[in-house]
Amino acid sequence: MQHPENDKQYKGLTVNEGVQNLPSVNPYATFRRKKRTLTAKEYFEGIRNGDISILGQAVTLVESSLPADQAIAQQVIEMCLPYAGNSIRLGITGVPGAGKSTFIEALGTELCQEGKHLAVLAIDPSSERSKGSILGDKTRMNELSTQANAFIRPSPSAGSLGGVARKTRETIVLCEAAGFDTILVETVGVGQSETAAHSMVDYFLLLQVTGTGDELQGIKRGIMEMADGIAINKCDGNNIERAHAARVSFRNALMLFPPSESGWKPDAICCSSIDHTGVMDVWHNVEEYITFTKQNGYFEHHRTEQAKYWMYETINAALLNGFYQDEEMDCLIKQAEQQVLNNELSSFIAANKLLDAYAKKK
Amino acid sequence: MQHPENDKQYKGLTVNEGVQNLPSVNPYATFRRKKRTLTAKEYFEGIRNGDISILGQAVTLVESSLPADQAIAQQVIEMCLPYAGNSIRLGITGVPGAGKSTFIEALGTELCQEGKHLAVLAIDPSSERSKGSILGDKTRMNELSTQANAFIRPSPSAGSLGGVARKTRETIVLCEAAGFDTILVETVGVGQSETAAHSMVDYFLLLQVTGTGDELQGIKRGIMEMADGIAINKCDGNNIERAHAARVSFRNALMLFPPSESGWKPDAICCSSIDHTGVMDVWHNVEEYITFTKQNGYFEHHRTEQAKYWMYETINAALLNGFYQDEEMDCLIKQAEQQVLNNELSSFIAANKLLDAYAKKK
Repeated sequence: MQHPENDKQYKGLTVNEGVQNLPSVNPYATFRRKKRTLTAKEYFEGIRNGDISILGQAVTLVESSLPADQAIAQQVIEMCLPYAGNSIRLGITGVPGAGKSTFIEALGTELCQEGKHLAVLAIDPSSERSKGSILGDKTRMNELSTQANAFIRPSPSAGSLGGVARKTRETIVLCEAAGFDTILVETVGVGQSETAAHSMVDYFLLLQVTGTGDELQGIKRGIMEMADGIAINKCDGNNIERAHAARVSFRNALMLFPPSESGWKPDAICCSSIDHTGVMDVWHNVEEYITFTKQNGYFEHHRTEQAKYWMYETINAALLNGFYQDEEMDCLIKQAEQQVLNNELSSFIAANKLLDAYAKKK
Repeated sequence: MQHPENDKQYKGLTVNEGVQNLPSVNPYATFRRKKRTLTAKEYFEGIRNGDISILGQAVTLVESSLPADQAIAQQVIEMCLPYAGNSIRLGITGVPGAGKSTFIEALGTELCQEGKHLAVLAIDPSSERSKGSILGDKTRMNELSTQANAFIRPSPSAGSLGGVARKTRETIVLCEAAGFDTILVETVGVGQSETAAHSMVDYFLLLQVTGTGDELQGIKRGIMEMADGIAINKCDGNNIERAHAARVSFRNALMLFPPSESGWKPDAICCSSIDHTGVMDVWHNVEEYITFTKQNGYFEHHRTEQAKYWMYETINAALLNGFYQDEEMDCLIKQAEQQVLNNELSSFIAANKLLDAYAKKK
């Protein structure tokens, strides 16, 4: 990570100074607290001071769609950026029923007890419809939510996947600047959220349940080949034998996959979130991966590639939104799509007609 | 497919009339042939009459980047569209060395002898660099290229993947209108060409060679989960035992994959292009798939989804090209990317700065 002193914007403000300069009495804790809007600098200082309440408010700004909020949010993110990056970012996916919440509860609690500072985030573009589907209900993470060094934040509410994912990625920056050294990003395993999560984490874990066939129904194709590791969850009770058999099958399947760019060979590991067995084996696999990829240079390469990816992703989304969110175009697009579906118009002619109409509008 | 009589544009011209109206002497076979430009209607009539030479010239127009050529090409495609769609479209991928050419030679020759009309196309955005990498050298398909009812066409020369793929998809329309009932689309298995091919074929075949490990190096992750079938090629000589072992491994791996949207369960089949064993088993698997998906409605659904996909793909490419092919922007983009890679600017701020610069230009 770039040292802040090398960055004009932060000249004269080092990590320690930032913390030292904060007054010992929180100036925001006044009777007008709820109404007073903090400045970007105040948010930044609160975050750097590890003030969870201010971090939470800043994340709310990031998630806000109000232009005024966004303006401040972008300043805060920019200020936090030089202090971000020092964490292990772990993506966790699995269908509903794979036991993601209990797994995160078990793993997170152990990590917190080891002294780690853990932020748990989520990407679920459907979260407004399926309220509480992931992380929405903190009561499912009873133990973890009482840990002093855990920060649990549900998915930003519904919107385009790109928008929701962008907000989660910005939240990672804030959490890291606030001192969180372990970031878990949860997704539901049923849509495109995995590609988005994969593009912001270091290690991507697929949580599977025992057995083959039906249990796999929910996982979208292509996700298995994205995984840096597979955890066979619910390896407990009279499920143990089946879990071990599933591990053998998955290991064999993983061997048939082409090697990943990182050079890492994914493994399948059994665990039980209830018996607390194997959960730390999964974590040690993550740590091994981090060591391995830091040594061969892939870790840093991957991080910068991800930053590049998000720059282009943001540009592309904006360019396309101009077209698709135009109300007049929307009507024309629907007509053209119908003609294409009826085989009355070729895909290419339809596209060109729409593009002509769009060009004339501008 | 829509009946041509229901389409205003083709009112009064039925399939048979189109053919009947063609003069028995080819008017284009004059001494000025090379210089005379055909009209769109003449191209269309030549294609419908099954004139391979005119089909080849029309494909050249489709591949041309000259606006005048493109204008005629689009008219020809639009005229051919009502006559397109009546074919089985098969995508074939595999790394160099998997034996794609010999497999296509073996399969294609058998299909032609069965009376099928076969067009062999390719998508290889790198084809200008690696001249003759796929299908460029017809001499590798000695037998097939002498078959009267085979039409072999190398990949459109280098360009953006989207552009190359679009041209191949347009060529499919022309070939189908010319009466070809079987279309093979070959890709190299090393890049994004597979996603493009997958979005224009009915059945996607992955050609593998025996063994595990090194042989898989070249295939990109995610491609295996895209396949509707895997053919283990080179199951001959002292390779037979290994090929059968590979088939077992692949079958086991395929069982772990989540079911595809079509409801079809992909299989792994051994074949030898040299001994001509198993090649038709692969084809029968394709036919089974077609019957299966036509019965459950997926075939038609998939085709219309593909048409929709290409409409949006064309629009998106045009919207993004305006930004990325602008020379002034190109310079700014490179600067911003470098700042993002140096961690001096967040992905999102960099994107917004570039978008602002672009908006001011217009």
